[in-house]
Amino acid sequence: MSDLNAVSRELIFFVNGKKMIEKNADPEEVLLSYLRRKAGLTGTKYGCGTGGCGACTVMVSSYSGHQERVMHYTVNACLQPIVTLHGAAVVTVEGVGSTRTKLHPVQERIAKAHGTQCGFCTPGMVMSMYTLLRNKPRPTMEDIKEALCGNICRCTGYRPIIDGFKTFCGREISQESFPMDDLLPLDPSQDLIFPPELLIMEKKFSGDALHFQGQRVSLVAPSELLHLLELKAEHPSAPLTVGNTTIGPKRLLKGVHHPLVVYVGRISELRAVTWGENGLTVGAACSLSVLKEELEKAVAEMEEERARAYRLILQTLQCLAGKQIRNMAANGMRDIHMNEKLFPDFGKTSLRPNEVLLSIDIPYSKPWESVAWYRQAQRREFAFAIVNAGMKVAVREGTDIVESLNVYYGGVGSTLVKCGRTCQQLVGRRWGEDLLTDACRFIKEDVDVSLSIHGGRAEYRKTLAISFFFKFYMQVALEMRERGVSDVDLPLEYLSALKPFKNEVPQGQQSYQLVSEAQPSADPVGHPSMHQSAFQQATGEAKYYDDLPPVKGELFIFMVTSTRAHAKIINIDPSEALKMPGVVTCISAGDVPGANRRLFMNYTEELFATEEVLETARHVICVGQIICAVVAESREQARRAAETVQITYQDLQPVFFTIQDAIKHKSFFEPRRKVERGDVDAALKMAEQILEDEIYMGGQEHFYMETQGLIAVPKGENEEMDLFVSTQHAALTQEVVGTALGIASNKITCHVKRLGGGFGGKVMKIASLSAITAVAAHKTGRAVRCCLERGDDMLITSGRHPFLGKYKVGYNRDGTIIAADIIYYSNGGCTLDESSFIMDKAVLHMDNGYKIPNLRGRGVVCKTYLPSYTAFRGFGGPQGLTVIESVLHEVAVRCGLPPEKVRGHRDVAQGCFRF
Amino acid sequence: MSDLNAVSRELIFFVNGKKMIEKNADPEEVLLSYLRRKAGLTGTKYGCGTGGCGACTVMVSSYSGHQERVMHYTVNACLQPIVTLHGAAVVTVEGVGSTRTKLHPVQERIAKAHGTQCGFCTPGMVMSMYTLLRNKPRPTMEDIKEALCGNICRCTGYRPIIDGFKTFCGREISQESFPMDDLLPLDPSQDLIFPPELLIMEKKFSGDALHFQGQRVSLVAPSELLHLLELKAEHPSAPLTVGNTTIGPKRLLKGVHHPLVVYVGRISELRAVTWGENGLTVGAACSLSVLKEELEKAVAEMEEERARAYRLILQTLQCLAGKQIRNMAANGMRDIHMNEKLFPDFGKTSLRPNEVLLSIDIPYSKPWESVAWYRQAQRREFAFAIVNAGMKVAVREGTDIVESLNVYYGGVGSTLVKCGRTCQQLVGRRWGEDLLTDACRFIKEDVDVSLSIHGGRAEYRKTLAISFFFKFYMQVALEMRERGVSDVDLPLEYLSALKPFKNEVPQGQQSYQLVSEAQPSADPVGHPSMHQSAFQQATGEAKYYDDLPPVKGELFIFMVTSTRAHAKIINIDPSEALKMPGVVTCISAGDVPGANRRLFMNYTEELFATEEVLETARHVICVGQIICAVVAESREQARRAAETVQITYQDLQPVFFTIQDAIKHKSFFEPRRKVERGDVDAALKMAEQILEDEIYMGGQEHFYMETQGLIAVPKGENEEMDLFVSTQHAALTQEVVGTALGIASNKITCHVKRLGGGFGGKVMKIASLSAITAVAAHKTGRAVRCCLERGDDMLITSGRHPFLGKYKVGYNRDGTIIAADIIYYSNGGCTLDESSFIMDKAVLHMDNGYKIPNLRGRGVVCKTYLPSYTAFRGFGGPQGLTVIESVLHEVAVRCGLPPEKVRGHRDVAQGCFRF
Repeated sequence: MSDLNAVSRELIFFVNGKKMIEKNADPEEVLLSYLRRKAGLTGTKYGCGTGGCGACTVMVSSYSGHQERVMHYTVNACLQPIVTLHGAAVVTVEGVGSTRTKLHPVQERIAKAHGTQCGFCTPGMVMSMYTLLRNKPRPTMEDIKEALCGNICRCTGYRPIIDGFKTFCGREISQESFPMDDLLPLDPSQDLIFPPELLIMEKKFSGDALHFQGQRVSLVAPSELLHLLELKAEHPSAPLTVGNTTIGPKRLLKGVHHPLVVYVGRISELRAVTWGENGLTVGAACSLSVLKEELEKAVAEMEEERARAYRLILQTLQCLAGKQIRNMAANGMRDIHMNEKLFPDFGKTSLRPNEVLLSIDIPYSKPWESVAWYRQAQRREFAFAIVNAGMKVAVREGTDIVESLNVYYGGVGSTLVKCGRTCQQLVGRRWGEDLLTDACRFIKEDVDVSLSIHGGRAEYRKTLAISFFFKFYMQVALEMRERGVSDVDLPLEYLSALKPFKNEVPQGQQSYQLVSEAQPSADPVGHPSMHQSAFQQATGEAKYYDDLPPVKGELFIFMVTSTRAHAKIINIDPSEALKMPGVVTCISAGDVPGANRRLFMNYTEELFATEEVLETARHVICVGQIICAVVAESREQARRAAETVQITYQDLQPVFFTIQDAIKHKSFFEPRRKVERGDVDAALKMAEQILEDEIYMGGQEHFYMETQGLIAVPKGENEEMDLFVSTQHAALTQEVVGTALGIASNKITCHVKRLGGGFGGKVMKIASLSAITAVAAHKTGRAVRCCLERGDDMLITSGRHPFLGKYKVGYNRDGTIIAADIIYYSNGGCTLDESSFIMDKAVLHMDNGYKIPNLRGRGVVCKTYLPSYTAFRGFGGPQGLTVIESVLHEVAVRCGLPPEKVRGHRDVAQGCFRF
Repeated sequence: MSDLNAVSRELIFFVNGKKMIEKNADPEEVLLSYLRRKAGLTGTKYGCGTGGCGACTVMVSSYSGHQERVMHYTVNACLQPIVTLHGAAVVTVEGVGSTRTKLHPVQERIAKAHGTQCGFCTPGMVMSMYTLLRNKPRPTMEDIKEALCGNICRCTGYRPIIDGFKTFCGREISQESFPMDDLLPLDPSQDLIFPPELLIMEKKFSGDALHFQGQRVSLVAPSELLHLLELKAEHPSAPLTVGNTTIGPKRLLKGVHHPLVVYVGRISELRAVTWGENGLTVGAACSLSVLKEELEKAVAEMEEERARAYRLILQTLQCLAGKQIRNMAANGMRDIHMNEKLFPDFGKTSLRPNEVLLSIDIPYSKPWESVAWYRQAQRREFAFAIVNAGMKVAVREGTDIVESLNVYYGGVGSTLVKCGRTCQQLVGRRWGEDLLTDACRFIKEDVDVSLSIHGGRAEYRKTLAISFFFKFYMQVALEMRERGVSDVDLPLEYLSALKPFKNEVPQGQQSYQLVSEAQPSADPVGHPSMHQSAFQQATGEAKYYDDLPPVKGELFIFMVTSTRAHAKIINIDPSEALKMPGVVTCISAGDVPGANRRLFMNYTEELFATEEVLETARHVICVGQIICAVVAESREQARRAAETVQITYQDLQPVFFTIQDAIKHKSFFEPRRKVERGDVDAALKMAEQILEDEIYMGGQEHFYMETQGLIAVPKGENEEMDLFVSTQHAALTQEVVGTALGIASNKITCHVKRLGGGFGGKVMKIASLSAITAVAAHKTGRAVRCCLERGDDMLITSGRHPFLGKYKVGYNRDGTIIAADIIYYSNGGCTLDESSFIMDKAVLHMDNGYKIPNLRGRGVVCKTYLPSYTAFRGFGGPQGLTVIESVLHEVAVRCGLPPEKVRGHRDVAQGCFRF
C-alpha cells in the first residue's frame, strides 16, 4: 500500500445529526443495512436492493470543495456503501420529523392528502420531496416529477401523493378531500443543519486517503491522483468506483465480488467540471447530477448551435436512472463513450494498468454537424438499455454531402460496436433516400448480432439498430431542409418519431360525492378520512415485519431454488455451505417434522421439492421451486452459503410454459368449469354473422413494495411459536405451519400488524415460506428471519394468471350479439392452488353486465412448468371481462358501429345493462 | 502475584454436557445469571438470590482427588461464582430431560402427581431430587426430606410433590390421583455422564493456580498452601472463600465488595478429613456435606461415649442451611468455633496476616464430659442465628463436682462471647439447683447485650442465653443421674426441653370424591387432571416473564426507595449514578408524561413519591416507597448506580406503624363499614354474661416464588407498547400504564403467559411498577426490564393486612350467644388501595355460618406509615372468621363446654348452622 499520504481507517459520518464512528467499516456494507440493523432506523425500507424502487431513498449532504457549498442529494441507501460516506451527513425519514416531536410539512401533506396506503414507499417519497425542498423551497411541478421519478408506488396511482406535494408549488387542491387550512408551513429553519464538525473535518482531513478492510473486500479511497495511479498499477484488476451503480448490483445479482475496490470520489481532479476553449471537460468521477446542473446553466447562455451536443446530453440524462442514481452514478468508464477502441470487450477498457480515465472532453458542437443518441430499454429510466446508439454526421459546408459519419451501437455485441463499413462507404454521398437504403443494408451487415448474445432477442436488436439509424436519417434530413441544403421528402406522419419522448407532469382526478353541509362533521360517512396510520407511515414509524428488531439469537434463512423447470433431483449437496462461516444448518424435505405440504382446500403444494413421479427421486416442476434452505447467523452468510449448495439434476421431459403448449400436451388441471344459458349452438346457426377469434392476456407481477417474509420466534415452550408475518391470510398460514410442524395449529400465533402491499400475492406462497421458516426455527430452537430479496421474490412467488380467451360469437348486423361460446384457458403454473377459483370468477364474469341470451363459458386451467400463478386484484374478474369487452369492440368494428352503441344496444335490447 | 506455579486465566466447565470456555470470567458473576442470560437456560429460576429458596438449584459434579471419585451435589446457582466451577460439570433442569426428547422420571412423577402449580419452584425440586437419585437410586423418605429441605414451595403444601417423589422409595400412592402403571422407570444409564475431558483436565491441571480478573473484583485460586500463604501475606484483607455463603449474600444485601478474593477450594490440604489419635481433623475448606458423610460413617462404628461430640455436630449440621448450602459452605473461619480469642471482633480472627486456618481438630469426647450446642433462629435452617451457644462441662470422675466449664455465646455481642466469670466461679461446685441459680445470675452479668446490638432484641437475646444454659443444666443433670452421681430433681414436664427438635417426614392426605366407574374416562368432571403445563414446568421449559430473552437494546430499571417512614424529600441527587458506566437515565415524578398515579376505584397511590402535604416538597409516607429509578444497560449497573442516588430527607412527624398507634392518632381511612342486625345494645343488656376482649392477627408476606416484574417493549410506533408482565390483573395494569403515559390504554398490550405465584400480591403494586417501567421505556425509546430482587420485593410490595378485632359479646351460660358487637381494625398501610374491600369481606364474614341474632360489625382501616397492605388469599375473609371463631372458643371455655358444642348450639338453637 502506498504511503504517499496519511491513511485513515476510521469511517466518520453523521446520521440524523448523530455522529457515527466505525472503526471496522466493511466496504461491502451498504447504507440500507447499516441504517436498518445497526442504527435501528427502520423507516428506510428495502424494496428491491438494486436502486430501482426508491423505497430506501435518503438524503446525503456533503461539502463540495469544487462548488464551495454543501450539496444535498438523494441516494438509494441499498446501493451506497457506507465507506463512501466518510465526511457526509445522512438524513433519513426519522431525521425529517416524527409524531413524537413534530411532523415535517412533507410528511403531513402526503398523509393528509391520502398519499399513503400500504405506506411502504412513503418514506422514500418523503425523502425525495424533502431533498427537493432543501434545494428549492418553491419547486415547480416539473421539479416534483423529476424528484419522484425514482420512487415507485404500487397502491395509490400517485395522484394523491402528487396532490399532497403540489401544495408546495403553491397549488391548491380540493378542500373536501384535503383541508389545507391548518397545514404546517414549510420552515427551513427547522431542518437539520449540516454538522459544522464535518466542515472542519473536510478542511483538515480531505487530503487523507482512506482504507477500510472488510471480511472479504477492502476499499481504498485515495485523495491524490498519483496515489490512484500507483494503486491502479499495483492492482490492475481492482475496479474503480464512485456511485456503486455497476459494482453494487452486479455483486448482488450475479455474485461477482472484488477483493479490492478503489473509490475515486475523493480525488478532486476527477470531480472537476471545467469549461475550456473547445468545450466542456468533465472529471471522470463527476456525478451526472452535477454534470446536468452545469450543462443546464451553460446551455441557457450558449449559442444554439454550439450547444447542440450539450442539449442532447441533457436530454439523455433525463433517461438515465432516477434522481437518486444520477446523484451518484458515473464511474467515468463506460457511461460516456469515446470510441470502440476504448472498449475492447465487455467491461474492459484499453487503458493501461497505470492509467485512469481522468476526464472526458465534450466539445462544442460545430456548424454543419449533427449528433444524436438513442436508447431503448424495458423501463425507460431504470433498466439497462437493450440497444443504445450514438451517431454523428458532418456535411460539407453548404451542402448535403457527407464528410464524415460515425455510428456506434451498444447492446449488439460484447462491447461497443462501430459500424465502420457503413460509415466509410457513405462518406461523399448525399443525405437522401439512396443513402438511407444503403445504410440500412450496411448496418445489417456491420451489426452482426450473435444469437447467443447476453439477454437474447438478436433479431429485435438488429431491428432496433436500423430503426435508430432511420430516426437519425430523418433528424439530419430535417435539419438540412431547415438549412436549405436538402429537399428530401419526409412524410408528415413520420415526423412524430423525432419527438423526444416526454413524461408529462402526471394529472389525475377523483370523483366523489360531496356530503351535505348539514351532515355533522363527526359523522364520518362520506367524509374523506385519513389513513389511521398515515402519520406513522410518513415518518417511517410504521412497523412492518422486517422492522422488528432482531430477536436474541436470531438466524436468517435463504432459499435454494431449482434452476430447472422439470427435472429429477439426483443429489443435494450442502457440504460446502455447511462449512461456511455462520452457517447453522441446511434444511430440506427430510427436516419437516409434519407434512411437507401446504394444503389449500384439496390442493396441495410441496414445501420443499421431493419425489412426485418416482418414489426414490426428488423432483422439481418449475424454476424457482424451493429445494432446500440454508440457515445462518446473518443474511449475508445465509445468502453466500446458499449459492454454494450443489444440486444435481436429471432433466425430464416435457418442459413447456405457455397455454398453447399446454393445450398441445393436453396438460390441464381438474376440475374444469362450465356455465351455460339458452341454446348456444342453435343461436349460432341463426346468427347473421359469426366471429371466431381469441385474445391473450399476459400475467403480471404483484410487485408489492415489501417483499415476502416473516420472523418465526419459537417460544421455547410446548412447541409454541410466534410468527410476525406479511400475510393476507393469517389463518391459512397458521394452519399450514401447524401441519408442517405436526402440531396443533393453535400453538402458532400469527402477528400481522400491516403489510407493505399484497394485492393477492401474499396469500398462498407466504404460507409455504412461513412453514419452511418455522421448520428451521423448530429445528434450531432459535428465531429465524426470512426476508426474500426482490429477485427471489419474483422468482419464487409468481403473479396474475395469463389467460387465453377463445370465442365463437354469433351476431346480427345491427350489433346484437345473440350467442357466444367462450373457452377460457388460464396458465395455472405447476400447481393448482387458487387457480380454479380464479377461473370460476373469470367464467362468472364472462358477459359482464351484458346479458347475452345464449351463452356458454368453459374454463380450463393449464398445468405448465412455471411457478404456480396466484390471486391478484380482481381474482379472475378482469380477465373474464376483458374477453367480452374485446368481443363487443370487435363486433362494433365489424358492424361499423361505435363500440358504445354495441354495448348500449344490449341495454336497450335486453334491458340488462347493469352499470 | 506469585509465580510459584502455572496460572491459568481460562475458565473451563461443562453445562449439560457442553463445554464452556470463558476467557474473561468475572469473579462476581454467579452461575444463575450465567445460566439464564449467557447460556439461555432459563429453567433455573431466580427466587431469592441468597440461597434461601432453592428455585435455582442445580447439580454440580466434580472429581474429588481426596475421595477418588466424582461427587454429585446440589448448589444454589445464585450463590455460586462461576469461577469456582473450573473443572466441574453443571447439570440444570434442561439437562435432565425435556418434552422434546424424553422426560426424566423425576420430571414425569412430580408432574403427574400434581406436584406443580405455579411451577416456579419445580425445576429446583426436580434438581434436588435428581441429585439425590444420582447418589442413591433407592432413597428413603428421610433422604427425600433432607434433599428437599432447601426448596420452598408456596402453592402445593408439598404433599403432592412428596407423593410424586416417594414412588422412588418404592411407595405406592393413590391410583386415582396418580396412575402409576405407565411411569417411566428410573434408568441411570440415561443420565449425562461426567465429561471424561474433565477427568483428564483434573489430572493434568489440578496443580495450576487460577486467576480471574473481573471489572471490579479479581479472584485467585491457588492450588498450593505456600502460594496461599504468600497471597495472604501480600493481601491481608482479601477474604478467603470456598462456598460464597458469607461473601456472596453480604455483597448482595449490603453492597460490600472486595477487590481481591482468594478461593481456597483447590488446595488439597484444606479439603482433607482425617482421623488421628485424638480424633478428627477437618480441613478448613472441607464442605459440611463431606464432614457429615465422614462423621456418619465414623459414628456408626465408634463407642457411644467417644462419639458424643460428633453426634452433636451431626445434629447441628441438620440445622445448618439446606443441602445445597451445606454442599458448599465452610469458610472454616467462623462457623466452627475454637474460643473467644480467635475472634477479637465481628468478622475478624486473630490469625496473623500470613496465617490461614488449615484445619480444625475435633477430639473424641471423654468420659465425665458433657457437651451441648444451641441455636435459635427465625428460620430453623436458613436464617442466621439470633443466639447460639456452645457449652462443655467436665466433672470430677465419679462425682457431680464441676472440674471445668465452658460457655460460649454467639449473637450477644459483636463477636463470640465467653462467659468467663460464670465458668470460673462455678468450678468446684456441685451440679445442682444452687449452681443453676447462680449461673443464671452470672450469665446475666457476663452477657451484657447492648441495646444497639445489630438486629436488636437485646432483652430477648439475654433470655435466650439463660434458657440455653437451663437446657444444658438439665441435660447434664440427667446424664449425671444416669451415671448415678446426682439426684437432682427434674420435673417430668421439663424434660421435653431436652428433646432435639426433629422435622418429621411430611405427611399429608387429600380427600376427594371418587367418580363412578361408569363415568367415561373422557368425561373430565371429578377426574384428577394434570396441570396443562406440568411437563413444561418440570422441564424448565415453562416461560415466565423474566425468561424471555433480552429484546434488542433492552435496559434494566432499579428502584430507589425511601429509607424514611415519613419525611419531606429535600433533594434527589442522581448525579453520581448518572456518571456510572452503563447508566442511561434516572426517572422520577417529573418524567411521567401522564398522571403520576395508580388509580384504583377512587383510591390513588403515587407512582413516584412527590408532594402531598406541601406543594413545594416531595414527600414520602413509608419506607420502601419508590422515589426514583435508575435505568442502565445491565441489572448490575442499574443496581450499583441506584445505590449511589442521594436522597436528602427532612423527617416529619408523626411516625407510627401499628393499629394501636393509629387508633391513638385517630388515623383512619374513609369509608368505614357497618353491618347491623337485631338490637345489639338491648340484647347485650339481657345477656347472662358479657365477654369483652380483642384478638390480633399479624400480617403475612406473599412470598410468591417469582418476584414482581415485567418487560416493557415499546413498539416504536404510535406509542404502542407490549408489556410482558407478572400480573394478576392485566386490565388494571393496562389502564394504569395508559394513564401514566397519558395515552389511550388500548395502545398497551399486556401479555401474561403465567405467573410464578401471586396469591393476591400481584394485583396492585405491579401496576405501579409497570407504569414506572413503561415511563422508562417511553423516555428512552428502548425496552426496559424490571425484575425486583427479593429484598426489594419484600420491601416495596407488602402483604396481608394485620387485623385487630375488638369485641363485646353477650351470652348465656348454656353457651348461646345472643349478641355481639365487633369492631375490626385493619392496618391498611399508607394508602387505601383495596383495603376497604378487604375490610368489607371481613365484616361480611363476621358471624361465619353462625347466625347471631343481634350483631353489629364495624370495620375501620387504619392509616399507618407502612407500605400499603394488599390482597391476599381469602381477601379479608380469614380475618373476619377468625374473630368469631375466637369468640366461640372463649365462650366455650368460659362456659366449661367443648367448643364444638357452642358452635353446634347455634345450629340447634337458631337453625342456622350453615356449614
